[in-house]
Amino acid sequence: MVSQNRAGPLILVSNDDGVQAAGLTRLTRALKDVGRVVVVAPDQERSAVSHSITLHRPLRVERVSRDVYSCDGTPTDCIMLAIHEIIKEKPDLVVSGINHGANLGDDIHYSGTVSAAFEGGIMGIPSIAISLVGEGKGNFAMAGEVAAKVAKRVLAEGLPRGVILNINVPDIESKEIKGISFTIQGERNYGGVIVEKVDPRGKKYYWIGGDEQGFEDIPGSDCNAIRDGYVSITPLRVKLTDSAALDRISKWRLAR
Amino acid sequence: MVSQNRAGPLILVSNDDGVQAAGLTRLTRALKDVGRVVVVAPDQERSAVSHSITLHRPLRVERVSRDVYSCDGTPTDCIMLAIHEIIKEKPDLVVSGINHGANLGDDIHYSGTVSAAFEGGIMGIPSIAISLVGEGKGNFAMAGEVAAKVAKRVLAEGLPRGVILNINVPDIESKEIKGISFTIQGERNYGGVIVEKVDPRGKKYYWIGGDEQGFEDIPGSDCNAIRDGYVSITPLRVKLTDSAALDRISKWRLAR
Repeated sequence: MVSQNRAGPLILVSNDDGVQAAGLTRLTRALKDVGRVVVVAPDQERSAVSHSITLHRPLRVERVSRDVYSCDGTPTDCIMLAIHEIIKEKPDLVVSGINHGANLGDDIHYSGTVSAAFEGGIMGIPSIAISLVGEGKGNFAMAGEVAAKVAKRVLAEGLPRGVILNINVPDIESKEIKGISFTIQGERNYGGVIVEKVDPRGKKYYWIGGDEQGFEDIPGSDCNAIRDGYVSITPLRVKLTDSAALDRISKWRLAR
Repeated sequence: MVSQNRAGPLILVSNDDGVQAAGLTRLTRALKDVGRVVVVAPDQERSAVSHSITLHRPLRVERVSRDVYSCDGTPTDCIMLAIHEIIKEKPDLVVSGINHGANLGDDIHYSGTVSAAFEGGIMGIPSIAISLVGEGKGNFAMAGEVAAKVAKRVLAEGLPRGVILNINVPDIESKEIKGISFTIQGERNYGGVIVEKVDPRGKKYYWIGGDEQGFEDIPGSDCNAIRDGYVSITPLRVKLTDSAALDRISKWRLAR
């Protein structure tokens, strides 16, 4: 579907806020300085869908404009369809975002935006997720500049196979940003994550809150970097084996 | 909702095949020898939902029977509701399964069953996912025995914080099983993951296949263990930071 003549690296862009989202538009604009950009993104918001794939129904792809496609599935569906059916090759880079809201600490497990980058990583493609923390002023332009800068570096130097970068940008004025911090995944703390209410017929229901929790104070973590006014870049891996635990449990004697 | 008097450890059970699934029933029966079991599981099949949480609508919980609840959300929703609203405490162990089908290699990223165990791990609770590979004879009884054996060991010895166990059991006769193998996460290979078809009105659609792919031949991997007739146990971690990559990219000079 996509014409084969192109200049520079091929960059596949997706997100979980949908093809019309301001963050995606801004990201695409910024990355056009870096290479040829093809967008395959959900036709509507699909946040908190994590790494879901759609197996129980068919998927449709619509061409929105030249090099922009929407799909009625999840971010991971978009990456799969893009690579196997739309561009029909592995792009040089996958960039997912700019997410409207943070993807920090353990919450990355729920994120459709981060999972789209993970799907790229599983396929062996250097991949980046980028999120703007907070819904306030929405300084997507600055986040776009960060994405373009990191994209250039990744294209020049590569990433270890199966490693993706999770970038969070504080939503403050450019001049207030203290710098860029390379971080570890932080940790959520637990509290009132669920609201219990009663419906008009007197029946109880629950609503997951999600956004209002705090994070543990862990030096070097993504959460601390954002709190302190830094852009946070965390390298994450798609292989989840815990080697130390493997050494330990391998000593277990378990009769079959 | 749950009575507080209990004997032995408290075990929270969930899955992604739904509260009525044969695998869950068998798992619950096997774990009753190990402790008090409370089930909170989806009211219908929710496979391939990964670590999704439901944020855009309320959730309902139904009491199916004593210590068995269903919820109209995802496996991760079930774990959250169970701990915050139903049992109102952290259980001693979370066990998710017995999944109807494999959760091997990179496919663990898509799995609702594995994600329910991950949610336990994020909360600092020792957690286990267990899957029966293949839909053939359905030897859930044997997989249940494996779950009970590993559960006892985990309750006795603990697991490092943030580590979960991903167990896959080959669907063969007990006497054919070669033993238990402690493994690393394997790797999927790529092929015809998507089917392209045309609907009755001549419009193209796509369907993600998913199940028919092979795996790379990696010694020590979960995929190889299953191929060779072993039960596979892989320790996975909820913290995804790649430390080696962090050392490497920390040397990047990126002007803000």
